[in-house]
Amino acid sequence: MQRFSTPLLVIVLVIVPVFGQQPSTQSAQQQAIAQSSAAPQTTAQLSPPRVKIEDYRERASRIIGAALTSDLAYRRLAWLTDRIGNRLSGSESLQRAIEWAASEMKSDGLEDVHTEKVMVPHWVRGEESLELVEPVHKNLAMLGLGNSVGTSVEGVTAEAVVVHDFDELERLGERLRGKIVVYNVPFTNYGATVQYRSAGPSRAARYGAVAAIVRSVTPVSLQTPHTGALRYDDAQPKIPAAAVTIEGAEMLERMQQRGEHPRLHLKMSAHFLPDAESANVVAEIRGREKPDEAVVIGGHIDSWDVGAGAQDDGGGIVATWEAVRLLKQLGLRPRRTIRVVLFTNEENGARGGAAYAEAHKAELAGHVLAIESDSGVFRPTGFGLSAKATPQARADFVEIAKLLAGLRADHINPDGEGTDISPMMDAGVTGASLDVDGTHYFDIHHTEADTFDKVNPQELASCVASLAVMAYVVADMPERLGQ
Amino acid sequence: MQRFSTPLLVIVLVIVPVFGQQPSTQSAQQQAIAQSSAAPQTTAQLSPPRVKIEDYRERASRIIGAALTSDLAYRRLAWLTDRIGNRLSGSESLQRAIEWAASEMKSDGLEDVHTEKVMVPHWVRGEESLELVEPVHKNLAMLGLGNSVGTSVEGVTAEAVVVHDFDELERLGERLRGKIVVYNVPFTNYGATVQYRSAGPSRAARYGAVAAIVRSVTPVSLQTPHTGALRYDDAQPKIPAAAVTIEGAEMLERMQQRGEHPRLHLKMSAHFLPDAESANVVAEIRGREKPDEAVVIGGHIDSWDVGAGAQDDGGGIVATWEAVRLLKQLGLRPRRTIRVVLFTNEENGARGGAAYAEAHKAELAGHVLAIESDSGVFRPTGFGLSAKATPQARADFVEIAKLLAGLRADHINPDGEGTDISPMMDAGVTGASLDVDGTHYFDIHHTEADTFDKVNPQELASCVASLAVMAYVVADMPERLGQ
Repeated sequence: MQRFSTPLLVIVLVIVPVFGQQPSTQSAQQQAIAQSSAAPQTTAQLSPPRVKIEDYRERASRIIGAALTSDLAYRRLAWLTDRIGNRLSGSESLQRAIEWAASEMKSDGLEDVHTEKVMVPHWVRGEESLELVEPVHKNLAMLGLGNSVGTSVEGVTAEAVVVHDFDELERLGERLRGKIVVYNVPFTNYGATVQYRSAGPSRAARYGAVAAIVRSVTPVSLQTPHTGALRYDDAQPKIPAAAVTIEGAEMLERMQQRGEHPRLHLKMSAHFLPDAESANVVAEIRGREKPDEAVVIGGHIDSWDVGAGAQDDGGGIVATWEAVRLLKQLGLRPRRTIRVVLFTNEENGARGGAAYAEAHKAELAGHVLAIESDSGVFRPTGFGLSAKATPQARADFVEIAKLLAGLRADHINPDGEGTDISPMMDAGVTGASLDVDGTHYFDIHHTEADTFDKVNPQELASCVASLAVMAYVVADMPERLGQ
Repeated sequence: MQRFSTPLLVIVLVIVPVFGQQPSTQSAQQQAIAQSSAAPQTTAQLSPPRVKIEDYRERASRIIGAALTSDLAYRRLAWLTDRIGNRLSGSESLQRAIEWAASEMKSDGLEDVHTEKVMVPHWVRGEESLELVEPVHKNLAMLGLGNSVGTSVEGVTAEAVVVHDFDELERLGERLRGKIVVYNVPFTNYGATVQYRSAGPSRAARYGAVAAIVRSVTPVSLQTPHTGALRYDDAQPKIPAAAVTIEGAEMLERMQQRGEHPRLHLKMSAHFLPDAESANVVAEIRGREKPDEAVVIGGHIDSWDVGAGAQDDGGGIVATWEAVRLLKQLGLRPRRTIRVVLFTNEENGARGGAAYAEAHKAELAGHVLAIESDSGVFRPTGFGLSAKATPQARADFVEIAKLLAGLRADHINPDGEGTDISPMMDAGVTGASLDVDGTHYFDIHHTEADTFDKVNPQELASCVASLAVMAYVVADMPERLGQ
């Protein structure tokens, strides 16, 4: 998951204080606050639901039972992460993952399984290192930031200047010329802290900094660097940028405080190759009455080039895929089509989501709902429904979620979105997110530690069940959601 | 800290189930159980205390106040870890740490500051790597085990066989010939799980295994390998051995379960150089009435060659040193001598502790008490007092600890020891451990993540206060402890 690559998402970050919560990147504490304050208010505005959930209780029970007794999604995620591994846009492993998923979906008996070509950026990390050269020599654990330029072959060496926020950066201003700016910003929440990773390099470049180093965006660390995309401001020189660990950033700050003037030597051979061919993977269960109306569910098949992309977002793709497979297996063909889309290039370009919306432009009026799963497959808490959804849609969403009360996945947050579905949402499609307990997501997000063992099979199965029930009932209810 | 290098310590591990707890390596839960069950029983056996703690309340208050308002120990630990770094026996950095500590102790005004020569093993890690070569190629995060032999230059390549315990190893027996044994043993407690690291390589070698890989001895991991010493059985061939992460061990097990026959390629250039000269650092406050009777407190100045040796055991040495410095600063000269010893080579040889006991053999009859701090400087809970201590000593220990009730550091566990003080204890000296909340110690123990930022300054100050009060009162009380 990344959170800033389109203007829409920037707006979402900015409005966080207004709504008092941010779907899917909020802490457990924030979520609790949001639930206690926002939920009653929302309920007060609800129309009476039209969906009759008693008509669906038996089917929901079968779906949930099937999800919680199957380990297929879990085994598929193990295969994806162990045998294919991480899947950065342009990599051979992403291509293998796409081919594997399409092939497996065909053997599942899903309908109209196909891939849809998408040209994606092809960023390559290359060799990289960060050394402390004064006052002592030490190699620092690091990861270059995605989309960063590289350094010259000999690298860049300069004094480090540690700052704690953009205000301090601005106060130092021209004194940063020729320096390496180190943002040592503690994690508060992802939305707030990630801005130093995304915008920090260009803001430092504005004052002549020669490189930027960002404390990893995470609450915890065992010398664990976290990568993720930066976004250059075209008005500023592009300077190389990398993440250090909490441990490394704190040490540099201590050295600065002691007056030791730490110096760093950064080497990165990061670069872009020409755009590469990639694809979204698409499959469906065709609706029995209104096949041109569709509920879309999905996650992203690409990942960063470290770890195994297990929670981000291997879990999201196997969970949404499995939800559709289970419905097929159970013979539950809804009135409308349910389509699963494994989007490509979410992490460093968001081209898959854009390509889907463009390729299916003519059909989007028939897209009843799009749900993205891209916050990990931890214990599901419910869904975030776009703040733009109609009161009628919200009323029915809240009602359908009651079928998930036994999983404690029945909470509907007042907003919801996702990078891959945002182009559809811009075109008027109602969007939603699968919301999960995010307590430990950012411990491993974009790191070598985002590996299969971090996935709990019962939690994954609960995500499958939640997605399948919600998608099925919305696709099957007699009247179209929200109209 | 390590826990098996002398026969005594092996016995301590074996008796753990009998006593229901293991000093200083127990989990918070175990500690709670031990406290609720063992404490009343112990109290029932106590003699009436002879120490009058009311005589010491004002002085204890001054000591605690001074400890909690000084940041000198914290700043010294920062310097040690940032500027000197980790300190394996035989390294230049250990020598620098020894010289620095002795020099600083002199400037503190401590008495009889000197170093005592100790010849130590000089193991060198060298270059090392572990690759999965089938069914896919992947570099695995690893650390060679301390004291391991290296591989040939080309390394060793063989099929991995994952086992879960020694029983399974024994059942496989000769089928392990030519294989690399992988012990995938989940962490229960350090004492139980570390046996696979220490004894696992030789037990696998007995059946012809060509190398041993051990899941890191830790409850949590962010792709974090943990080193630590192995102990070869002289009757078996010495095979190279390394630790992988939880993530790596679990992946190998999944591959084995899927019938994929994972193969590993291990390369290690680990080797021993000739023994190196090192030293214990010794300083004291000389007793005003009975200078030949002494309370010894200390930790170990060496560390593994990864991370910064902050909790293991930089914290232990700065806390014990600071306890003595504070008493000196406060003008509190006790009846008996208080001596601080920074032992060398605890991690891979325990030569410092042995050398101290040997060099001071003639004085040991006057050693009233030896306290070791080697479980980290987390929140102190109290002390573990050797099970061999007399009832009178225990009664006075429990009584003195009441002065630490305000720090919640007043619990006396029924046993206590330490690698460095065990040779003294063998010679009849009463031993004790500073006990601390061990919940997170093994998260970082023997890893790159054992760094300064893991130390909480208030917790460190509480350790200093606890050590200073206990050492001072035992050194000053009119009658000798336990007699």
